[in-house]
Order: sequence, then C-alpha cells, then structure tokens
Amino acid sequence: MAAAMEPAIILVRPQMGENIGAAARAMLNFGLTDMRLVAPRDGWPNPRAVAMASGAAGRVLDRARVFATLAEAMADVDYAYATTARGRELTKPVLTPATAMADARARVAQGGRVAVIFGPERAGLENEDVARANAIITVPVNPDFPSLNLAQAVLLAGYEWARDSLPPEPAPQGRRPDGEAPATRLEIERLADHWEERLAEAGFFFPPEKAPAMKLTLRNLWSRLPLTRADTRIFHGMLRQLIRRG
Amino acid sequence: MAAAMEPAIILVRPQMGENIGAAARAMLNFGLTDMRLVAPRDGWPNPRAVAMASGAAGRVLDRARVFATLAEAMADVDYAYATTARGRELTKPVLTPATAMADARARVAQGGRVAVIFGPERAGLENEDVARANAIITVPVNPDFPSLNLAQAVLLAGYEWARDSLPPEPAPQGRRPDGEAPATRLEIERLADHWEERLAEAGFFFPPEKAPAMKLTLRNLWSRLPLTRADTRIFHGMLRQLIRRG
Repeated sequence: MAAAMEPAIILVRPQMGENIGAAARAMLNFGLTDMRLVAPRDGWPNPRAVAMASGAAGRVLDRARVFATLAEAMADVDYAYATTARGRELTKPVLTPATAMADARARVAQGGRVAVIFGPERAGLENEDVARANAIITVPVNPDFPSLNLAQAVLLAGYEWARDSLPPEPAPQGRRPDGEAPATRLEIERLADHWEERLAEAGFFFPPEKAPAMKLTLRNLWSRLPLTRADTRIFHGMLRQLIRRG
Repeated sequence: MAAAMEPAIILVRPQMGENIGAAARAMLNFGLTDMRLVAPRDGWPNPRAVAMASGAAGRVLDRARVFATLAEAMADVDYAYATTARGRELTKPVLTPATAMADARARVAQGGRVAVIFGPERAGLENEDVARANAIITVPVNPDFPSLNLAQAVLLAGYEWARDSLPPEPAPQGRRPDGEAPATRLEIERLADHWEERLAEAGFFFPPEKAPAMKLTLRNLWSRLPLTRADTRIFHGMLRQLIRRG
C-alpha cells in the first residue's frame, strides 16, 4: 500500500485553502500522496484548495483524510517529525530536512510508517503538537529572514525525501546524438593537424622562432578541451569554410 | 563585495510581479541578495513584487538590477547554471540542485562569480538563453507532475546553496593549467560573437533556414568548453589570421 511506503504529510489546523492546495502540489512534485488534515479552519472539502491544486495534484486532495485531532491523524504512524521554525523542544533530536528524510527512508525501508507534521500558517505547531512527534525538523534558513510558507516547507521535505530516488532525467526524449560521445585521441590529433596546417599556410605561426612554442600551445589546447565527436566535426567545418572563402 | 560571494539569481523575462516578489523572499530565506531581472514583462519597479516581498525581502528588490538582455545580466559572471525542466542540451552537464550548488560553492571559494538562471513562468528558458549557460540544473521531480513554480525553483537553489552539511564537491570540468584564469562570461560572449560574425561572412551558416540552429550549436559549444582567458585570445587570433589571409 502506498501509504506505508511514503511519509504521510500532516497539516495541523491549516488556515488558507490555497495553502493546502499548494502543499498538495508540492507533495506530488516529489511523489508524495498521503495528505492528512487536522481540523482545517474552513472545513473540508475546500474549493480554494481544489482551485490551487488543479490537475493531478487534485487527486492528492481527493484522497486527503480529515481528522479532528493530531493524535487521530497519527494513529498508524510509527515515527513522526514535527516541522518548527526553531528547535524549542530540546529533549528531542533537531534534524535538518536532509537528515530527517534520510532517517525516514531508513525507517520506511524497515517497514515503518512515518509522518511529517506541519503547523498552521502563522503560529506554527503548538507545544502539545510537537510533544506527539519523535523528532523535530528545522530548516536551516537565514536567521534574519526565516519565513518559509507552508507549501515551501512541504516542498523541502518532499525534495529531501525524493532526493536519492528520483535521478535528474538524463535523456528525456531519447535524443542522444552519436556526436555526444567524446572525441577519440585520434580525432583530436587529426583536428589539431588540420588547424596547424591551415594556420601555418595563413602565416599564423610568426615569428618563425616562436612557431614551435605556438604549435605546442595549440596542441595542448585541443587536447585539454572536452570535445565531443560532433564538436570536432564543427571545428573542421568552420576551418574549411573560413579557408574556402579566402 | 556581496555579489562576488554568492550566486546571482537571474530571472529571465519574468511575468508576474508576485512571482518576482516570492522569488526575492525565497532568495533571502537562504541569504541570497543579488537579484537580476532580464526584461521583466511589466517593467520595473513592480508594485505587486513589492507587495509580495514585504519587509526585509523588499531590500532584495530595491537592490535588484534590470538588464535588457541575458548577456548583459551575465557580463561579470564566470560560470552560469540554467534551470530547465528537462536536460535538453545534452552536451552540457545536467546537474541536480545539490551538485550544482556544491560546484558553485567550490567556484566561489576560488574567487569565481556564479549565477543561476531561471526562465519565465510558463515557457521556461529559450534555447538561446540556455546556450549562454555552462551547465544545466534540473530538479529531480516526479516526472508525472514536474510543475515547480518560479519561487520554488529559486527556493531549492537557495536551499542547496546554503546547506553546509555537505562538503563542496570538485568542479566537474574545472581542471585548468597552472594559474590560468578561466575566461569570464563576457569574454566567452565576445568570442562567440566574433566567430559568428566572421563565419556568417564566410557563408558558414548555410542553408539559411538552418542558420539559427547552427548558431545555437556554436553558442552552446563556446559556453561549454572550459576556456581560459589565454584560450580566448588564441581563438580570436586564429580567426583573425585565417580571415586576413583571405
């Protein structure tokens, strides 16, 4: 079941529907779909949340479950992280999102159910909410401007949850020209030869006593650049065209 | 100076003032203050941006600089990361925010100036914008729901920039010969311009309908190569000599 494999995202007394919708989007951006709402201020369902989370994220809202209390929302949860602006409950571990989500992955891998708890927009979690969590997540923000909104806090948790599971798409359209392969030594050699010959004809290596050093510099340059096969064809082609014009 | 110590955040043709304001907040959450705007749709200053970025984030907007073109916005930048939804320019390194910002920290530690480039809200960056970047950042999102908004993309870049739990990783292609300073963005820009002009005169961009794609390929090539200042002088010099001969 999906809910057992991913952290539940619990929003405690969220106020603005828009923020609930934005949180649903942020969740789905990183593959999270188990949203739980504790006593949302404006009831549920909330049309403003739906308007904000159009498309696929709307399904996160459709699946969202509403609870009267945080305790009920956490009934099936083995380990919970409370997100707070500052680590005020010092008897609990205070973790960064990165550390917390690494910990969450390890717990989930062992069959545990985890949840991340977020407070209302302005006030944040009450002490009795935090008391129900096992650990605290504090985002390392600029202390002079620590104001993350609800969806941003959810986004960072989702980002850290997914960080090792979602690779950056390497070649989305399968478009991988053969020219992307790095040029071989021989191709670089031929390119350097071609340019050296034509430049010599053009009088580039002047004065003559400096020619050997200049040629060496150029060889070094071609060898050092991370050219692909396609790049070498381009450099051959540009040279040919510049010469042909002459 | 602050600008040299932190990545510049460049918003290319941003549309909604609210999003510019939200991006300023996201920047300041992680201590970033060097915002640059390229041709903002609704002009500048923008009251909606100011309304969104009230308080300290308003000062990020006050300091923001506006440029007509991306090239101008990048004039003092040594290394730039373009944020795109997918890695479409496959000859450039495609990095996660984590890898990119570790790379950025390493470059900044060596005195380099870096920038992260973000496109307009809906369309994202044009290919010619991406062509000016050295590397691509793609956030590893759920492929079925990859819709990050502008401020969220900025937030993740800032978050990764500020994270100090990971030591900086070495730059991907950063090995340079003894004491050779890397070319600045402006030097690369001038080099690309010079070659494009002369190649155009030489009839290289043929047939005409293929010219834009060919020019884009070349821009990408120059941006991607780890050229030093000395290298750019050599490439200018070779071109001049080849033309002079004609």
